[in-house]
Amino acid sequence: MDVAVGIIMGSQSDWPTMREAAVILDELGIRYESKIVSAHRTPDRLWEYGKSAAGRGLKVIIAGAGGAAHLPGMMASKTRVPVIGVPVQTRALSGVDSLYSIVQMPKGYPVATMAIGAAGAANAGLMAAGILGLSDPALAGRLDAWRAALSASIPEEPRDE
Amino acid sequence: MDVAVGIIMGSQSDWPTMREAAVILDELGIRYESKIVSAHRTPDRLWEYGKSAAGRGLKVIIAGAGGAAHLPGMMASKTRVPVIGVPVQTRALSGVDSLYSIVQMPKGYPVATMAIGAAGAANAGLMAAGILGLSDPALAGRLDAWRAALSASIPEEPRDE
Amino acid sequence: MDVAVGIIMGSQSDWPTMREAAVILDELGIRYESKIVSAHRTPDRLWEYGKSAAGRGLKVIIAGAGGAAHLPGMMASKTRVPVIGVPVQTRALSGVDSLYSIVQMPKGYPVATMAIGAAGAANAGLMAAGILGLSDPALAGRLDAWRAALSASIPEEPRDE
Amino acid sequence: MDVAVGIIMGSQSDWPTMREAAVILDELGIRYESKIVSAHRTPDRLWEYGKSAAGRGLKVIIAGAGGAAHLPGMMASKTRVPVIGVPVQTRALSGVDSLYSIVQMPKGYPVATMAIGAAGAANAGLMAAGILGLSDPALAGRLDAWRAALSASIPEEPRDE
Amino acid sequence: MDVAVGIIMGSQSDWPTMREAAVILDELGIRYESKIVSAHRTPDRLWEYGKSAAGRGLKVIIAGAGGAAHLPGMMASKTRVPVIGVPVQTRALSGVDSLYSIVQMPKGYPVATMAIGAAGAANAGLMAAGILGLSDPALAGRLDAWRAALSASIPEEPRDE
Amino acid sequence: MDVAVGIIMGSQSDWPTMREAAVILDELGIRYESKIVSAHRTPDRLWEYGKSAAGRGLKVIIAGAGGAAHLPGMMASKTRVPVIGVPVQTRALSGVDSLYSIVQMPKGYPVATMAIGAAGAANAGLMAAGILGLSDPALAGRLDAWRAALSASIPEEPRDE
Amino acid sequence: MDVAVGIIMGSQSDWPTMREAAVILDELGIRYESKIVSAHRTPDRLWEYGKSAAGRGLKVIIAGAGGAAHLPGMMASKTRVPVIGVPVQTRALSGVDSLYSIVQMPKGYPVATMAIGAAGAANAGLMAAGILGLSDPALAGRLDAWRAALSASIPEEPRDE
Amino acid sequence: MDVAVGIIMGSQSDWPTMREAAVILDELGIRYESKIVSAHRTPDRLWEYGKSAAGRGLKVIIAGAGGAAHLPGMMASKTRVPVIGVPVQTRALSGVDSLYSIVQMPKGYPVATMAIGAAGAANAGLMAAGILGLSDPALAGRLDAWRAALSASIPEEPRDE
Repeated sequence: MDVAVGIIMGSQSDWPTMREAAVILDELGIRYESKIVSAHRTPDRLWEYGKSAAGRGLKVIIAGAGGAAHLPGMMASKTRVPVIGVPVQTRALSGVDSLYSIVQMPKGYPVATMAIGAAGAANAGLMAAGILGLSDPALAGRLDAWRAALSASIPEEPRDE
Repeated sequence: MDVAVGIIMGSQSDWPTMREAAVILDELGIRYESKIVSAHRTPDRLWEYGKSAAGRGLKVIIAGAGGAAHLPGMMASKTRVPVIGVPVQTRALSGVDSLYSIVQMPKGYPVATMAIGAAGAANAGLMAAGILGLSDPALAGRLDAWRAALSASIPEEPRDE
Repeated sequence: MDVAVGIIMGSQSDWPTMREAAVILDELGIRYESKIVSAHRTPDRLWEYGKSAAGRGLKVIIAGAGGAAHLPGMMASKTRVPVIGVPVQTRALSGVDSLYSIVQMPKGYPVATMAIGAAGAANAGLMAAGILGLSDPALAGRLDAWRAALSASIPEEPRDE
Repeated sequence: MDVAVGIIMGSQSDWPTMREAAVILDELGIRYESKIVSAHRTPDRLWEYGKSAAGRGLKVIIAGAGGAAHLPGMMASKTRVPVIGVPVQTRALSGVDSLYSIVQMPKGYPVATMAIGAAGAANAGLMAAGILGLSDPALAGRLDAWRAALSASIPEEPRDE
Repeated sequence: MDVAVGIIMGSQSDWPTMREAAVILDELGIRYESKIVSAHRTPDRLWEYGKSAAGRGLKVIIAGAGGAAHLPGMMASKTRVPVIGVPVQTRALSGVDSLYSIVQMPKGYPVATMAIGAAGAANAGLMAAGILGLSDPALAGRLDAWRAALSASIPEEPRDE
Repeated sequence: MDVAVGIIMGSQSDWPTMREAAVILDELGIRYESKIVSAHRTPDRLWEYGKSAAGRGLKVIIAGAGGAAHLPGMMASKTRVPVIGVPVQTRALSGVDSLYSIVQMPKGYPVATMAIGAAGAANAGLMAAGILGLSDPALAGRLDAWRAALSASIPEEPRDE
Repeated sequence: MDVAVGIIMGSQSDWPTMREAAVILDELGIRYESKIVSAHRTPDRLWEYGKSAAGRGLKVIIAGAGGAAHLPGMMASKTRVPVIGVPVQTRALSGVDSLYSIVQMPKGYPVATMAIGAAGAANAGLMAAGILGLSDPALAGRLDAWRAALSASIPEEPRDE
Repeated sequence: MDVAVGIIMGSQSDWPTMREAAVILDELGIRYESKIVSAHRTPDRLWEYGKSAAGRGLKVIIAGAGGAAHLPGMMASKTRVPVIGVPVQTRALSGVDSLYSIVQMPKGYPVATMAIGAAGAANAGLMAAGILGLSDPALAGRLDAWRAALSASIPEEPRDE
């Protein structure tokens, strides 16, 4: 099985957030790679990654970034492979800057934007699974099971701790 | 060819926005249906739609809503079919309410959120095309052509009007 | 005496907030139940709860949720029993996301929204008491006493600590 | 039948918004009065209104205000009768000021806050109906019918206009 | 010399902030009183305070409050004595709620709003001094000296610590 | 009678807002001057105005500005005469930029900030009257009468128009 | 004299804003070129422009964009030539999205951000003049004269219109 | 070599942020001075600094401030030397107040605004280097090397820590 998903992020400091996407992909048996691709510090790496993505067989790109957060949108400009964006929480603006920079893309270049922070990263993994499951019934089944297990894990009543 | 995409929206008043998604799907030769499915006014219709979506062969659901904007997230809860959310611009809060209600989903139920308003709706159509193109090379080619045409349409210099 | 109030919340993590509602109901001698009902993870539980609420004799539903926070609004869609919404504080957006998702309901399905966090949860209990007190003079008296005691507890002057 | 609901507002300029509450109460056959009670310009009128509300048999007070919007919260301080607050849209801050001033009440004095603007005013009327319907089965029936009619009015598909 | 300034606040929890106003008044030799006057919990105390303020010889009222923060505006409604408002920082909304509730007063009832938090409270003391100094040359001189000392305390260059 | 109040503003375009302050001062019989003093375009004029304010007998300075809005704060730095700030509404940020720039002054240099826009300008005039009335019983009486007339002008009930 | 300044923008629709920069450069006798360079639609044009900027003798790049607004930051990544960013006002978010996307750049790649909209574009021209004037005394003199004329144009008093 | 850059800040408490600018200037071999120049506490120092800046040979002024943050804009009013503004993060408003006060300058007086906080301060140093490098090829080379080293420091893959 080939690598189907590329998890990319602007910097090492995004990894504690983006790892949540990797965890989900592991749980669902989806092969992925994790790369640091900085839109500003390594723009040529971004270019290369985008231009080769479809040819290398990548089906989904999960891109996390914080602040000006240009990585997801620039990647969407360079490839038709669907890009899922994860706004990383930031110090001063709590990730509202990341969210606006990722979600407010102009017509032509969508980024499938997730919630700010770790929940958003996990959901990026699940969204990737949903997309890949469209042509992979076994994966679709594993995703259904994952969702059913989540639902089943919810207790009836809250408990004091 | 079957209907691949469902465009749903909370109310008739969302249609001028959501029609932009339909226009793109038409341009790219993707079959779709357009339905009004209100999370609050027709919750059972939402349930029915969500439960039958995968079985009916829908590959992508594009859901637009404004204000509390529960439709995309509730649909994501009812089906594993990927849901793309479009925040419709609102009168008092300009769609920030719609955006937060759609994008801030908890772990387990991603909504692929687009920009507020018409550009976001058009991009929802393009994101759907990108997803469907993963297993439809002809569509992928049409999407590449659409993107190339958009790029080619940009003049070198601005002009006074 | 039957259970008059249902306290529901999207997840166990909302309980430290929502417990404040329970404390108030205890102080005022109002019977209640506490349930975890996740709009996204257990939508069918939400459906069931909403459809049976009036028939089971519930008079008020207090619903707390954070982030996309669809629980209060979806519950308001499923039952005519008055729903009081409590926006739970969130990590990135401090509960502004929860507040907008709960309060910005469309015409037809009101949610009586309280302040973000613990004060809002306590006030949800008091609002429930005010509603129930309309047809229960003894409870109205206890609510008056509770309010009078709160007023009487305010010292004349601030003190250094 | 006595007047059950008091609609109060800070100024004549709030009436185009608050009239939506009156329209709903008329549709549901609920008797109400409409008064201008300005927290700042007529504070003694507010005091009088609040102190006499329960004794006069009012069951619900719907209070609309914009900007600093102290009316709903101050009314909640003067009476145990449930107060529903409607944030009126404002020029510079679009009603975010009204919303924060109304919803962020401290522990002890809840205001059941609705959406900003006309939808919120209509919903205030519906929330009042839900509360009154708890002890008035005929009204509860009319509310059920109103909700059913709203649901039934939603077409299946959007139409171009 | 009579008490010239009333420092009032909505709750004991506002005192760590409002004490900064008292410190300034002490430094400038201005007599003041400090009272807890809750707009919601002790509305009659607010009424009494406002109605007697001018007659008791108060020249300035400094009012601090957080959240819905109705105290400064309601006091401005009850007396022509100038009211200075201090928005206390809050947990979820950082005092933006307090700021909007205090500053966005309607025509007729100004509140002289200061910065959020401790700097705002200190400045409330200085604003009171500026007002009182208009008819008290000795105080004006002390204020000039206080300002000159502040200016003189600024070093030429920053230092590592 | 000398000029007691200086109304200053950053530009001619602020005058439609600031004129509301002049109207109030006229109504209350307070002498004032109106000047354009731009913090950025005429900083030396600002310096001169601030340094001479107390000596010229000014008792209150009303300063309106929009955007970066440095005028009120810089004036407060140059004179101990109380400065009242009016945030003028702006195109892109609706005056939130003006408000933050005016109200968030550091310890030492208070600006008595009013609401955004015309209501804030009118209130600046009333705040000036309240301050001047402390040592001018006749003015205090006129202010009382103005306030009483405003209260008396409020009708009992809203009317359709 | 060579072209010293490049004015670039994401789309034709930015030109009414960005023309203000051109007007200033014309007034100050600075040679410039105006190009449409879309970060997303023409990324290779952006690459080419950035890589050749220093070699072609450009001294300053003025980049305007709205929404996700990646153009200024991506250009700053591709060249050491100073980049001045102009946030173009947007429909839903008024340019706050543009501002955050432009100003919140990570360490390494500054964008000299101006105010939202036309004033920001004019100021971009003036900032370019200030930079170029460092090594061009004649231009510095013209800038001084421009500033002096602006200051001299401010009337003493506002006038009714 | 003369001092080319002035780093100024409103208070000692801004130094931990602004030191990041100094670190960059040291790394790139640019001579600078660091001064505390408070717009409000030492306005005459600001005046003096601005009037003498060009004559003393300063090429760039980096100005950091928080809250009302008038220092960068007032400095831009007093000198044609390019001013780079750094919004310092604040307690209540996280630096959004600083950002708006610095960036929203009116036409005529640009401030080259950087990101909020330490990254913005470092970028101010780099922007200064980019400007000075226009007429100093050796410095331009060092800046190129600094940028290349930053790019080279980015690892290919994220690592768990």
